Amino acid sequence: MTGEQFLMLPGPTPLPNRIIRAMSRPLINHRGPEFKKILLEVTEGVKEICQTKHHVLIYPSSGTGGLEAAVVNFISPGDKVLAVSIGVFGDRFASIAKKFGAEVEKMDFTWGEAADPEIIGERLKKDINREIKAVLITHNETSTGVFNDLKAIKEAAGNHPALFLVDAVSGLAAVDLKMDEWGIDVVVSGSQKAFMVPPGLCFLAFNDRAYEAYKKSKSPKFYWDIDLGLEYLAKGQNPVTPPISIYYGMQEALKMMKEEGLENILKRHKNYRDMVRESIKSVGLKLLANDENASTAGTSVIAPEGIGANKIRQYMLEKFNIVLAGGQQSLNDVIFRIGHLGYVRELDLLAVIAALEITLKELGFAFDMGAGVRKAQEFLLNNYKG
Amino acid sequence: MTGEQFLMLPGPTPLPNRIIRAMSRPLINHRGPEFKKILLEVTEGVKEICQTKHHVLIYPSSGTGGLEAAVVNFISPGDKVLAVSIGVFGDRFASIAKKFGAEVEKMDFTWGEAADPEIIGERLKKDINREIKAVLITHNETSTGVFNDLKAIKEAAGNHPALFLVDAVSGLAAVDLKMDEWGIDVVVSGSQKAFMVPPGLCFLAFNDRAYEAYKKSKSPKFYWDIDLGLEYLAKGQNPVTPPISIYYGMQEALKMMKEEGLENILKRHKNYRDMVRESIKSVGLKLLANDENASTAGTSVIAPEGIGANKIRQYMLEKFNIVLAGGQQSLNDVIFRIGHLGYVRELDLLAVIAALEITLKELGFAFDMGAGVRKAQEFLLNNYKG
Repeated sequence: MTGEQFLMLPGPTPLPNRIIRAMSRPLINHRGPEFKKILLEVTEGVKEICQTKHHVLIYPSSGTGGLEAAVVNFISPGDKVLAVSIGVFGDRFASIAKKFGAEVEKMDFTWGEAADPEIIGERLKKDINREIKAVLITHNETSTGVFNDLKAIKEAAGNHPALFLVDAVSGLAAVDLKMDEWGIDVVVSGSQKAFMVPPGLCFLAFNDRAYEAYKKSKSPKFYWDIDLGLEYLAKGQNPVTPPISIYYGMQEALKMMKEEGLENILKRHKNYRDMVRESIKSVGLKLLANDENASTAGTSVIAPEGIGANKIRQYMLEKFNIVLAGGQQSLNDVIFRIGHLGYVRELDLLAVIAALEITLKELGFAFDMGAGVRKAQEFLLNNYKG
Repeated sequence: MTGEQFLMLPGPTPLPNRIIRAMSRPLINHRGPEFKKILLEVTEGVKEICQTKHHVLIYPSSGTGGLEAAVVNFISPGDKVLAVSIGVFGDRFASIAKKFGAEVEKMDFTWGEAADPEIIGERLKKDINREIKAVLITHNETSTGVFNDLKAIKEAAGNHPALFLVDAVSGLAAVDLKMDEWGIDVVVSGSQKAFMVPPGLCFLAFNDRAYEAYKKSKSPKFYWDIDLGLEYLAKGQNPVTPPISIYYGMQEALKMMKEEGLENILKRHKNYRDMVRESIKSVGLKLLANDENASTAGTSVIAPEGIGANKIRQYMLEKFNIVLAGGQQSLNDVIFRIGHLGYVRELDLLAVIAALEITLKELGFAFDMGAGVRKAQEFLLNNYKG
């Protein structure tokens, strides 16, 4: 009996019962006072998580919709844009900007590594005529399990006036992001990651510098148009019909997150990461990311030579009903990814590590079975003491 | 004790328990085989409801997102477009086309009336050089409670090659729409109307003629790009993270709709309309729409002189916890709207009519209290016999 599925993806994540119950409430009028209260509460809550006092708009869409919203509102066709990519989602952000006519200069870093603040800083310093209007960058790259040090990157950029547009879809609330303090202009995120809510809503946070760029922006827009959104938000409404049930989920999620505290949430994700990474190392497997920039949202593990990553994933699914993510594009069958994002318990991770060990043994990988679990136990024991 | 709210809007609509329960299931991998099955099942189900054998793509968005998808995929900047409007949502479709650079010729009909097929036909006949590339038209105009006779309009259009793009967000499955038989090229709809599911998904149905226009379309696009959608659909996936819970709801809704049968669903909505309209007439109130084109999704009632519509709505909400929609823009305070769309029972409508009568009496309107309910009872009695 394998029982209920372990969804160990870097999003969508498992749902807490509190959120499922909140979402089961009957629908209400999305133009009435009850929904207004929820909309304003969720908007304020997302602002707190983004650590910004500026604007947040919420759209019925996936995270990719939020990336498109950032591009059409804050970038104009012909604008020179520096698109920093460390994986699939960095590439996607660049593609969207290209589709909407930006002159995209791509800056690629090796998959599995973080963007180098110094190289970005150098590039911006060379831009004496201030031709680069925006820098697109991923906060946490889900495809490789690496986060970018946005604070250091922003510091390296010095006083270059380019807008910083950040894809924080999988990173927000799992990896620290101080939007205002670090001077980030635009942050995009979604409901289905550290918020522990099903997919269906994306968040677009932007400051007044970004709004100035919007005023001059020339891309055609309606659905994503921030002035339309702000006009309706002032009335406590959305311009379009909002996914009411997902708002219920967000309202409950933000309550839970307030109870736990953002600092504790970030610490918890860090612990998940460290616990998983130490276990994996003890088993004798290699990790794609180095320690400094390893994502706290998910860990990319390199499959042992001779045993493809997908074989491991398949075995885990069939025998244990544990869903792991695979590698994308060039990393397909090379890595598997363990999500530890949102509503994950340490006990779940212990079980996943144990099951992974059984799988590896079964597939012929030679190692000391139990070593990974023991390491995780030790990690937890030390953690409880500390 | 007013108990649970009666949500009598023309969408979002009340949710059946079966759908709420379906939506409460744990999330799954949106790139795995289980979700593939759901995606394909929902796609096929929506095709059946659209009465088309062509393409359906599903987006995480509101219905307005679907209108934008129709515009950016099938219309190019500079294209001459005939935008037929009979209310707020017809205006919105025209606005979106304008925003994306179409040369929009607006054809407005009086609010409360349907579009005249003959006038549309005449206009298209005059277009000897076939400059009009597309006709935008609303299937069911929620703001006034009027549906357009798309079959007659399409016939009046004769062999004019303009694409017919239809906003069927509130109409689909409440008002008949035979996409293929009538030669409609594009149909947009959403999950929160006759489908009885929360908002969060929109549907874009299109035929091969529309796809030919797409191939030549010049609007920038990524999120709404149908080729990207078709490419992923072939793998049983979405290009972006789908709102999995809303898909669960759609899957269950389509099962329920299959059990009932599309013809019965349409008949049921017709009965709701006729029952409500006859009652309202018996009470002595006037209806905005005439009998021929009155919407089966919702009924617009003109408030008695001296008693504003919003006062009636407020009283109904406070005393009975019944939510009615108001009039939009020029119809604000002039009409109130009773939604009878999706998961509505005849018993609910009887109660709403009774409560409306009490409200009208309390607010000083002179009429024979009980006349509306009696008419509705007679309607049901005859209906059961027939």
